[in-house]
Amino acid sequence: MASIAVIGGTGDLGKGIARRLAKAGHDVTIGSRKAEKARTIAEAMEGEFGHGANEDAAQGKDIVIVTVPYESQEATLTTIRDKVGDAIVVDTTVPLMPPKVMRVQLPSAGCAALEAKAILGDDVRFVTAFHNVSAHLLDSEDYVDCDVLVFGDDIEARKAVVELCPGMGLRGLSGGSLANSAAAEAITSILIYMNKTYKADGAGIRFTNLAEAPTIP
Amino acid sequence: MASIAVIGGTGDLGKGIARRLAKAGHDVTIGSRKAEKARTIAEAMEGEFGHGANEDAAQGKDIVIVTVPYESQEATLTTIRDKVGDAIVVDTTVPLMPPKVMRVQLPSAGCAALEAKAILGDDVRFVTAFHNVSAHLLDSEDYVDCDVLVFGDDIEARKAVVELCPGMGLRGLSGGSLANSAAAEAITSILIYMNKTYKADGAGIRFTNLAEAPTIP
Repeated sequence: MASIAVIGGTGDLGKGIARRLAKAGHDVTIGSRKAEKARTIAEAMEGEFGHGANEDAAQGKDIVIVTVPYESQEATLTTIRDKVGDAIVVDTTVPLMPPKVMRVQLPSAGCAALEAKAILGDDVRFVTAFHNVSAHLLDSEDYVDCDVLVFGDDIEARKAVVELCPGMGLRGLSGGSLANSAAAEAITSILIYMNKTYKADGAGIRFTNLAEAPTIP
Repeated sequence: MASIAVIGGTGDLGKGIARRLAKAGHDVTIGSRKAEKARTIAEAMEGEFGHGANEDAAQGKDIVIVTVPYESQEATLTTIRDKVGDAIVVDTTVPLMPPKVMRVQLPSAGCAALEAKAILGDDVRFVTAFHNVSAHLLDSEDYVDCDVLVFGDDIEARKAVVELCPGMGLRGLSGGSLANSAAAEAITSILIYMNKTYKADGAGIRFTNLAEAPTIP
């Protein structure tokens, strides 16, 4: 079992990830910009959670998962980059630009993942994941009919995050190099569009025809 | 039933699309850069197909489907743009840049779809589709376990192409605005990566949890 911080862990996505990781037996710490808010949320959740300001929560962990809106990504990563040490940092950021969230608008660097990598520097072990899972389904007992794509250039780190998924009731799949995050980041806008167009309560994606992929939980 | 040209219809993707459309009862013409090649392929295929040079095949049709490699996209669209008239032009182009085809490398315009739109101009009715279906599965009798995303800003045209899919044994889904093509274009590199990584013979994608989407054939 791993020690895991969920940075910005007070939103739906963060809470959903934290709750599922704790249920799987991991030692989970909720981080927030304000320590007090992290404490309030951690105490309100069922189960045992550590809590603290983001920069404190990020220290001394095996895995640090960042779940903040795109507009907070740069500030949050800057806050934690000198704290994470050898931890695997997992960024979930999707570059949604309200109000046009149903429109794919990737940043000029190609994707938010490459922007994040530039902020964190080459010494931080970095992957991206969880772009496409519905936050409200994740933060429930419901079955999540959606694959989790994991991207990164650090193959061991990528593998570790793929393997974190089954315990959370999810199928993790490697999506290849960090630059490939662009695909999952773009898919999120399509899923938001489909929620509206096809009356979906948490549209998702599944990859098909994979002979040797992990089984779907 | 519609009159449909498949431009660059001598490759696997083009042949697969042409064959399935003809089977559905449409009047299909195979186009190629060289009229002679179009004739050879059309005569070798089971069923009745028209044939001709791309610029001739594109004339007087209801729908013109472009299936050429990215490096031929600009030249091909330039060849046909003054010929298509009121037809719906469907571009299938994915901006793969060999040899790194497993890496997402979207063009600076955001996606190949927006580049194509700039070439064709605002008067051509334009959508994109069929980015993610495996060409070799499409060009066979096999079941294709993959949704077809259709993108475009002309809502009627987009709807027409979505509705073309069931006759081809495929589920078509609207993916929203033309700019959203970036998602499907990027997914193709992920699918090529998965073919290798998870030993897939034509990896695909399905969207899940859609309450009001067309049924999967």
